[in-house]
Amino acid sequence: MEIDESFKELLCSVKEKKPLVHHITNYVTVNDCANIVLAVGGSPVMADDINEVEDMVSIASTLVINIGTLNERTIEAMIKAGKKANELGIPVVLDPVGVGATPYRKETALKLIKEIKFAVIRGNLAEIKILCGMNGAAKGVDSEEVMRDDVKEVAKICANRLNTVAAITGVYDYVSDGNKVFVLKNGTKMLTRVTGTGCMTTALVGTYCGVTKDYLLAAAAGILTMSMSGEKAHEKLTKDQGSGSFRVKLIDEVFNLTGEDFVKRGNINEEN
Amino acid sequence: MEIDESFKELLCSVKEKKPLVHHITNYVTVNDCANIVLAVGGSPVMADDINEVEDMVSIASTLVINIGTLNERTIEAMIKAGKKANELGIPVVLDPVGVGATPYRKETALKLIKEIKFAVIRGNLAEIKILCGMNGAAKGVDSEEVMRDDVKEVAKICANRLNTVAAITGVYDYVSDGNKVFVLKNGTKMLTRVTGTGCMTTALVGTYCGVTKDYLLAAAAGILTMSMSGEKAHEKLTKDQGSGSFRVKLIDEVFNLTGEDFVKRGNINEEN
Amino acid sequence: MEIDESFKELLCSVKEKKPLVHHITNYVTVNDCANIVLAVGGSPVMADDINEVEDMVSIASTLVINIGTLNERTIEAMIKAGKKANELGIPVVLDPVGVGATPYRKETALKLIKEIKFAVIRGNLAEIKILCGMNGAAKGVDSEEVMRDDVKEVAKICANRLNTVAAITGVYDYVSDGNKVFVLKNGTKMLTRVTGTGCMTTALVGTYCGVTKDYLLAAAAGILTMSMSGEKAHEKLTKDQGSGSFRVKLIDEVFNLTGEDFVKRGNINEEN
Repeated sequence: MEIDESFKELLCSVKEKKPLVHHITNYVTVNDCANIVLAVGGSPVMADDINEVEDMVSIASTLVINIGTLNERTIEAMIKAGKKANELGIPVVLDPVGVGATPYRKETALKLIKEIKFAVIRGNLAEIKILCGMNGAAKGVDSEEVMRDDVKEVAKICANRLNTVAAITGVYDYVSDGNKVFVLKNGTKMLTRVTGTGCMTTALVGTYCGVTKDYLLAAAAGILTMSMSGEKAHEKLTKDQGSGSFRVKLIDEVFNLTGEDFVKRGNINEEN
Repeated sequence: MEIDESFKELLCSVKEKKPLVHHITNYVTVNDCANIVLAVGGSPVMADDINEVEDMVSIASTLVINIGTLNERTIEAMIKAGKKANELGIPVVLDPVGVGATPYRKETALKLIKEIKFAVIRGNLAEIKILCGMNGAAKGVDSEEVMRDDVKEVAKICANRLNTVAAITGVYDYVSDGNKVFVLKNGTKMLTRVTGTGCMTTALVGTYCGVTKDYLLAAAAGILTMSMSGEKAHEKLTKDQGSGSFRVKLIDEVFNLTGEDFVKRGNINEEN
Repeated sequence: MEIDESFKELLCSVKEKKPLVHHITNYVTVNDCANIVLAVGGSPVMADDINEVEDMVSIASTLVINIGTLNERTIEAMIKAGKKANELGIPVVLDPVGVGATPYRKETALKLIKEIKFAVIRGNLAEIKILCGMNGAAKGVDSEEVMRDDVKEVAKICANRLNTVAAITGVYDYVSDGNKVFVLKNGTKMLTRVTGTGCMTTALVGTYCGVTKDYLLAAAAGILTMSMSGEKAHEKLTKDQGSGSFRVKLIDEVFNLTGEDFVKRGNINEEN
């Protein structure tokens, strides 16, 4: 099938080109992000000092911004790096971790969106809605959108409003460029029992963005890499194992993922 | 047995309520803390910026403060978050990591104790003594207490002096509310060969504090969760495995822990 | 053989003395560094606040400085801690992570070298060259050195210029005090697929420096501990395992490493 072959090529391309993925991210899951990028074939670098982020992003293939443990110092660096990346045509990916939890996160995320053009924004449904102003009943049409909770539509609307590829992950995953939508149905609940699987997914999306200009495809590839690897890891888990072993196997499976996995296992539906 | 049943219920309650545990903690073991909270059934969130800690703690069930890699920025956030938690009746747990190592840690810990009411303070014997002013021969009665090193008494005295539940972990663990003392005799030396087992224990204590007002029981439950899981993980370790595998199995065992484990394996003694 | 016996003794000494290794390091691999130090038998402590680094280093056996995620706050702490360590005769080890990636890293590394006397500097070939001013065709003799890329010579020259033990890791590893050179030929490519293996190697070097004044030997011992353990971990990897399992096994192997491994497996060549 056409689409599967595209994913296959994308994975090959990551392994050949080893894109350098610059992260300005949280200190909770940063190690996992570095290891997952290495596992899939990319090359991670983490740097967040304002004195060097522009230089670092200039030699990178992608920039991943994650607000998980944001603070004043790193926010400034995110903006500086993001603007530089935009200037150089380097794709920037955003993970608005917990954007609904505090006003500070929301303000920051909105500021980032205003100042930086993102290739992909990946979050859960609640996070993506907040970024689009869909979070309140006082918002007219939006509130209606919230009601029916048609995630596919939310992805499309957000992609259009934010002029980005919107990637909403959950039980099913929805990725849209505002026109097409990929509905992805791989995954396992175990992915919610390990910290950082969202951050790692975003890191993978960033890695694929480093080797193609088709950010819709890259976002879908990143999500599938995580969800299919999660499935495979879960299948290999024995009864006396739990989230500790799952996490190790998850990275193993990303490491061993092949293009064939996209063809055989990928539950990918392209819709309009 | 009465006590065992209480622990059983507490674990059930964590799995049902999935308490949100807000951590202001060190960057060394933060990922382990997040994963252990997820493994037992809670929901971790890490946030340390002064602009959001009050908002974050307001939606949390517990606050865990760990001074492992303290700095001026995070200390300020700890105090702000702790005061807010006190105001809202949200339990706050302290891990005074390495408080005896530098004057700065000691000053900080004493400041935290002065400004914040802690539900539980968990540390090793040396750390807890320092917090109570028991660290010097020049301290009259205190020095005598140091001499006889009756840990049970230290736990009681500290609980009374600091108006908290004092939890002293070591070969045996002692938890006191100033009146009763639980003496807990599970554990394995392997727990000292992996970084963060102390921090993770405190994170577990915090998780249990999120579902009960009986902080004495919660502290004991958190410690037992770690010490019993450590025992089980150690038992399953093969000869060619070491601290790397132990760490993975430790999280697996916390993930698979059941109420029955408290009944069958828990070595729990309630004393006065 | 004489040298092997020296390594054997050094490992014993670490396990007996459990040297306290103070790290001012990056937040990406800090957990791995702590666990690897514990695995080999040392005792790690991480502290980077300017108000406590002098006190912390004063009770430590070694100081490890790693610029992986440097920032203004931590650079100041590195210098303060390094100077104090020099004053007290405590060995300081440097890992100039990614020093060629940005001008800020280069300036910082050069500043550190100017202000602090290092017992060992460990990096890859590119990093070590930059520290010695060997990075440009415009540098006369140096450019010639770059051309022939005789790593052994680079190690010697750098050791002399920087008045330190220079440790260059790569496919083969070269350690020199400016006079002798150890050429070490253990290792596996898998070590490049996990984040932090460089940082962990430096942490191990620091650990060995905590029990001997022979920093040439200590540097070689640290590198061999990682490269031999990497080999053993790789040999035990099954087909369905990958970088996740490798990382766990790597720490297991460091944990189980014996003096005999240096004798039987170590591929150590002492040259002039």
